[in-house]
Amino acid sequence: MSVLVWIVYDITDDKLRNRVAKECKKYGLERVQKSVFLGRLENNRFDEISEKCLDLIDEETDSVYIFPFCQDDFRRIRVLGQGFDKKLVNDELLARYF
Amino acid sequence: MSVLVWIVYDITDDKLRNRVAKECKKYGLERVQKSVFLGRLENNRFDEISEKCLDLIDEETDSVYIFPFCQDDFRRIRVLGQGFDKKLVNDELLARYF
Repeated sequence: MSVLVWIVYDITDDKLRNRVAKECKKYGLERVQKSVFLGRLENNRFDEISEKCLDLIDEETDSVYIFPFCQDDFRRIRVLGQGFDKKLVNDELLARYF
Repeated sequence: MSVLVWIVYDITDDKLRNRVAKECKKYGLERVQKSVFLGRLENNRFDEISEKCLDLIDEETDSVYIFPFCQDDFRRIRVLGQGFDKKLVNDELLARYF
């Protein structure tokens, strides 16, 4: 079983932030904005990446949100302003993941 | 019909940020972190708040993410670090919304 996820983070330290971004890429997630990744993860990898992020961040100052989502929800997401490269969150991306 | 939503924003200007927060409160959403609201919206209110936020923000610098979610997805959300007041995102909150 796999799950579609958004990962959105707010990390103060540049080095730690870069390391979290690297982890996301290693897991095959796609960067859709500076601090936002999107992609599909196997269920066990979902747990794994959560643990890795938790190890990397400073829990006192940083935050990482991991939002799984289903197809219906994905279609209803609204992104206003500079949130994403909107070309990515379009039919092409939908076609890739669904 | 109503929908459960997260609203997560990144807004540079203090005044604009406060106005978006006020809008979220007016719509009955609950503040779970400085820049994160959670709650239930009627479908037409979902469209309305999207438009209001879009009117308020500076589209060149700011972003607002509006993530609808279903019960199954909600139970799987991971919040690491300082993301939320975790007491809110617990059984009590689940009980209130589902």
